[in-house]
Amino acid sequence: MARVVVDVMPKPEILDPQGKAVHQALDRLGFGGVADVRQGKRFELAVDGDLTEERLAEVRRIAETLLSNPVIEDFEVRIEEPVA
Amino acid sequence: MARVVVDVMPKPEILDPQGKAVHQALDRLGFGGVADVRQGKRFELAVDGDLTEERLAEVRRIAETLLSNPVIEDFEVRIEEPVA
Repeated sequence: MARVVVDVMPKPEILDPQGKAVHQALDRLGFGGVADVRQGKRFELAVDGDLTEERLAEVRRIAETLLSNPVIEDFEVRIEEPVA
Repeated sequence: MARVVVDVMPKPEILDPQGKAVHQALDRLGFGGVADVRQGKRFELAVDGDLTEERLAEVRRIAETLLSNPVIEDFEVRIEEPVA
């Protein structure tokens, strides 16, 4: 069993209204010193068995087709930790 | 300028309907071999100036009060990269 993390973030050139709302809230609440906020999604997948190249390629396909919208979002697949 | 990442995930003992929906969709789409999916949020904060202990403590306060709901979510603050 292995834990794989998929981070999905809006592409840099895409407006991010959620992140902008958080940023404005920070200003209102008196938290200064933050120049920008972007909000995305984080998925943690528990993958059965050993994390072979094949399995990892499948996770990338999942990330591309189901977890992200490639038109407006970038994704990154990371192996978090091997679970005993 | 520094980039700080705040990961917000549902606590392990909390039901995660979003993650469950993704998991079921994986099964339907023929992606086997995934035992569990949890879905959370990822925030990227661009912080002005040097990342002092004080600034980092402020980001933790932001994460606790604005970015997460401590009753049902855990958060983790990570320094991603120093931006030149």
